[in-house]
Amino acid sequence: MIKEKLKVAIVGATGYAGCELIRILLRHPDVCISSVSRRLEGSEKISDIFPVFRGRLDLPCENVDVPSICKAADFIFLALPHKVSMSFVPGFLKAGKKVVDLSADYRLKDTAEYEKWYGVKHTSPELLGSAVYGLPEVNKQKIASAKLVANPGCYPTGSLLGIIPLLDGKFIDSGGIIIDAKSGATGAGRTPAVSLLFAEVNENLKAYKVNRHQHMPEIDQELSGVSGSAVEVVFTPHLVPMNRGILSTIYMTLSKNMDTSSALEVFKGYYKDMPFVRVLAENIFPETKDVLGTNFCDIGIKVTGRRVIVVTAIDNLYKGASSQAVHNMNLMEGFDERAGLA
Amino acid sequence: MIKEKLKVAIVGATGYAGCELIRILLRHPDVCISSVSRRLEGSEKISDIFPVFRGRLDLPCENVDVPSICKAADFIFLALPHKVSMSFVPGFLKAGKKVVDLSADYRLKDTAEYEKWYGVKHTSPELLGSAVYGLPEVNKQKIASAKLVANPGCYPTGSLLGIIPLLDGKFIDSGGIIIDAKSGATGAGRTPAVSLLFAEVNENLKAYKVNRHQHMPEIDQELSGVSGSAVEVVFTPHLVPMNRGILSTIYMTLSKNMDTSSALEVFKGYYKDMPFVRVLAENIFPETKDVLGTNFCDIGIKVTGRRVIVVTAIDNLYKGASSQAVHNMNLMEGFDERAGLA
Amino acid sequence: MIKEKLKVAIVGATGYAGCELIRILLRHPDVCISSVSRRLEGSEKISDIFPVFRGRLDLPCENVDVPSICKAADFIFLALPHKVSMSFVPGFLKAGKKVVDLSADYRLKDTAEYEKWYGVKHTSPELLGSAVYGLPEVNKQKIASAKLVANPGCYPTGSLLGIIPLLDGKFIDSGGIIIDAKSGATGAGRTPAVSLLFAEVNENLKAYKVNRHQHMPEIDQELSGVSGSAVEVVFTPHLVPMNRGILSTIYMTLSKNMDTSSALEVFKGYYKDMPFVRVLAENIFPETKDVLGTNFCDIGIKVTGRRVIVVTAIDNLYKGASSQAVHNMNLMEGFDERAGLA
Amino acid sequence: MIKEKLKVAIVGATGYAGCELIRILLRHPDVCISSVSRRLEGSEKISDIFPVFRGRLDLPCENVDVPSICKAADFIFLALPHKVSMSFVPGFLKAGKKVVDLSADYRLKDTAEYEKWYGVKHTSPELLGSAVYGLPEVNKQKIASAKLVANPGCYPTGSLLGIIPLLDGKFIDSGGIIIDAKSGATGAGRTPAVSLLFAEVNENLKAYKVNRHQHMPEIDQELSGVSGSAVEVVFTPHLVPMNRGILSTIYMTLSKNMDTSSALEVFKGYYKDMPFVRVLAENIFPETKDVLGTNFCDIGIKVTGRRVIVVTAIDNLYKGASSQAVHNMNLMEGFDERAGLA
Repeated sequence: MIKEKLKVAIVGATGYAGCELIRILLRHPDVCISSVSRRLEGSEKISDIFPVFRGRLDLPCENVDVPSICKAADFIFLALPHKVSMSFVPGFLKAGKKVVDLSADYRLKDTAEYEKWYGVKHTSPELLGSAVYGLPEVNKQKIASAKLVANPGCYPTGSLLGIIPLLDGKFIDSGGIIIDAKSGATGAGRTPAVSLLFAEVNENLKAYKVNRHQHMPEIDQELSGVSGSAVEVVFTPHLVPMNRGILSTIYMTLSKNMDTSSALEVFKGYYKDMPFVRVLAENIFPETKDVLGTNFCDIGIKVTGRRVIVVTAIDNLYKGASSQAVHNMNLMEGFDERAGLA
Repeated sequence: MIKEKLKVAIVGATGYAGCELIRILLRHPDVCISSVSRRLEGSEKISDIFPVFRGRLDLPCENVDVPSICKAADFIFLALPHKVSMSFVPGFLKAGKKVVDLSADYRLKDTAEYEKWYGVKHTSPELLGSAVYGLPEVNKQKIASAKLVANPGCYPTGSLLGIIPLLDGKFIDSGGIIIDAKSGATGAGRTPAVSLLFAEVNENLKAYKVNRHQHMPEIDQELSGVSGSAVEVVFTPHLVPMNRGILSTIYMTLSKNMDTSSALEVFKGYYKDMPFVRVLAENIFPETKDVLGTNFCDIGIKVTGRRVIVVTAIDNLYKGASSQAVHNMNLMEGFDERAGLA
Repeated sequence: MIKEKLKVAIVGATGYAGCELIRILLRHPDVCISSVSRRLEGSEKISDIFPVFRGRLDLPCENVDVPSICKAADFIFLALPHKVSMSFVPGFLKAGKKVVDLSADYRLKDTAEYEKWYGVKHTSPELLGSAVYGLPEVNKQKIASAKLVANPGCYPTGSLLGIIPLLDGKFIDSGGIIIDAKSGATGAGRTPAVSLLFAEVNENLKAYKVNRHQHMPEIDQELSGVSGSAVEVVFTPHLVPMNRGILSTIYMTLSKNMDTSSALEVFKGYYKDMPFVRVLAENIFPETKDVLGTNFCDIGIKVTGRRVIVVTAIDNLYKGASSQAVHNMNLMEGFDERAGLA
Repeated sequence: MIKEKLKVAIVGATGYAGCELIRILLRHPDVCISSVSRRLEGSEKISDIFPVFRGRLDLPCENVDVPSICKAADFIFLALPHKVSMSFVPGFLKAGKKVVDLSADYRLKDTAEYEKWYGVKHTSPELLGSAVYGLPEVNKQKIASAKLVANPGCYPTGSLLGIIPLLDGKFIDSGGIIIDAKSGATGAGRTPAVSLLFAEVNENLKAYKVNRHQHMPEIDQELSGVSGSAVEVVFTPHLVPMNRGILSTIYMTLSKNMDTSSALEVFKGYYKDMPFVRVLAENIFPETKDVLGTNFCDIGIKVTGRRVIVVTAIDNLYKGASSQAVHNMNLMEGFDERAGLA
């Protein structure tokens, strides 16, 4: 007997994360894409918007309509912008669908923080309690039973995976964590702006939103949860002239003496059952090209005196967005967690 | 006695051509920039728009106002978009100013052609007769006495310089000229569009406006003038993931037998007094990086049977726009033609 | 009953084509990689050479040894340099293995041509008769029964697919075909050279080997076979600052009148059973990013007067090398031709 | 009376720094290039090596020969690799020439440190005492009277300028300084290596030599000099897919409370007479493209709690190498310090 495939919808299919979701799900053995939609009117085919899908997925990309999407699909990915997502999520949940939301709307537990960083009132705060922060390496069990998963931001994914094993084991001071993160341009989305034009980004490097990026509170929240007390990181994001990839160089202060080799053991132990984290050998550091198009997070470590330097690499559109979303779906649906991702 | 410097204005200073005009003119020994303006309201400093000029040119960039610009400057560069330029040029000429217009508005002599390719009626057709097509290698003398110079398009500059010596000498058939041109992204301007985002242009190559680019009639017009009969080229532009540079690969049919060495002599002879064309040795072909930030056009040639392949390289923002505009000013003002450009 | 997987070897695994072969074969449902080797001594793990495979393929990459490879594998991919490949191929064939050779060594039927373009004597000319040129869109049946497939060059793949339907149908003159091809940097291989350094290739565009590239005789040979008489193309390759992709802009002369729409129909008819060619709609032209990481060749066409302009896009490492090699294996082994490639 | 121009030699003219030195010196009003040389035999023209100089500088690039260079030139720039430079410098000094050495050979005062980081014995330690570290913003006066200037490394230039004003004023702890530096690929030089190939660097980001880069002791030495006690920084360099530019993000701990605005004042005060440092307004951070092709160092600052984040941007080949070398020459020769650089 052949198991029927899970019908999935991608809401907000025309951004970079939506495109990559489609690419991954087309290869996934257990699902079929039954609906793609976006906020604009029209019914252009998705393969006209992303010609890479010509002949592979020629569905019309319709205007988001919750009832008709609910009819077409049983599992919903939302890849909409922040603030927009929360206007649709409650409808899908009410209809009994499971949801992975790639926006920031259900990541922050504290609505005051949300409103401070995103500038609008949260319209469905009642869902924040049950929404699970979808970082499988930390919350695998909770994700498995969740109805609504808030898929982590790209920067938080790369940062948290490089900090949590040391923080959780009390090997570092929770104060004074510095994250120097560098991202490719797809991280900024697909909305036109002079600052994102090829000729502005190419042959240029800059820091931006220095210590005031909206991903900071998300990092602080998750680290505080692990630490048991309030953590505030210093966070400097940079825009790098490449399409994809985030490299995060993290500086922490050891609370007890430890050499590089022991620090590596801490990470290896923490991630020993995690198929998508690769802790590298001593003196080897990750490069973004080695995780491109994969769900891996590669991690390299160096201890120097009381400082520990951790470097993590992810593909911002995969582990930082779409493949992590599929990983979450795999857990929520009881699929092999590697399905479609290996 | 110190000669007073020529006061120049840059109208439309906030695009890529405007930016490079400033860069060149700041180094020019005989001029000073006394006015920069743009179509938007406001009086932001030009050095806030292009921080590269911080501390070097901190003039406010004001809304275009012909009378006040005329008061401030004696020579006018217009780096405005097509269709906009012609609403300002007549005013500057009436005020007795000399003008180099970098837009397409005064390049085509035939208003019907202009209207066909640019989609609007020409509003000052009476100026077309006296406007000089500013390709110094062909029209040096006319430029020297012009009041209004229509600065050539970037593609036409690279194409014409690779064809005219052969066409002028009747060495090639005027039919069947094929131009396969490749440009960096600044050629598309600085107005935001999804198709110009870094992540769309990077790691991508495409042909666009295949045989229907608005620079075609300009090439046809100039070649027809040289040939004495109507010339229609085949023209395919491509967008290359780099900021600057145009490489034009041109395929022509010889009307009489000729080897590569003789073809090179034709070019060397034609350009012998032209300081900004470099004809390369046999088997050497130009690369865009060797003309970057210069007013040079480098040319390489190969004959194979009855075909001649000519490859030309220019910097689209320099020889294809701003440095050629300054070259034209040098000729119009009787400066050393190399001033500010060597 | 579970079918046993085909054991495959990759000989010459450390170049770009070898790396992509591994990537594709790791996802292929019907094969397992049982041997990777290279010309250098040592037994570094392949995952140390290409860290992207850490934890996914940790086989040692040993020095090429035909007997031990024959013991380990039943199907052999050779991704060695030209001239080196032919020293190993006869051994594998003698041992009864099927071979796809990605080098140029068995592509040219005429040993004089081979020696002219590659500068060495051919050491196994007796195999040239039975070697099949592995362009599935043209030779599908012959490939299915071949023991030795010569995998086409990247430029010939992109060129031939844009010419053959018109040439085969006698719609064009066989003289005067011009191919203006543009390739990303991986096409030049992974051997260090100043001219391939990042800072030399980036922000640069150049033509190279103008009308004397070693892929020309391969194109001429295949077109001559289709045409029935000798064809000699004009061929100009260019190096584009991107990792992957070839865009070929091909100019041909129609032998009878035909509009764009009819020309498109010719292509659609010719490729109607070919799953990896996509003929685009009128006025749509291919972009390399839409075929990246795929086995597709996308084709766009425009007729203007007696000229027809065809633009094709392939991924030089996929359809131009590794995925085409896997496609050939699928045909040789009777697998679904899409296996591992969709 | 026309002053005779200073005759300068460039020894080691075929690397990126040598190329840029030529570019700058060709525009310098007070010098002429009378000799270019390299370590290889031959006498290819420099314009064949760097075709950008065709028709502008066609001198033969000869094998380094101290006596004949001394005959040809009065001022010597050495742009040779580390370890090679010190075999030539003593000869030039003995001949009474002034020297700017762009290598690391005369930067470290402690020969033990030199031997530890560069792996060879220093062969002219007697010159280290009089060699002046050529950072004009710190050592302007000493440079003016020096015979031998050790031109700073690219990373140290960008780092020191972002730290010294705060350290010198005792506003920060001298412990715990973290420098997260990101460089374009020209910083790695022009010697072929797989890791520097276009296809390896493009679309990739990595940290390298994490806390063990040979520029660290140079930074430590200069900061220790300013501080009066031993300073050891944490230093992580990164390779960014762009040709030029270094962005340094520096994290320091304030020793007394201070807001961003006061910190900016410290920098503005320190650099008030320095024409090539631009301290940006609050909330503005530098981008490498705004210093490209200039001798500027742009600096942005943010204070958050006890942390101060300083971001500096330089062109690694200009302020980080060649234009700083020319700046040093200007000071040594009593030229206007801006000559050739504005």
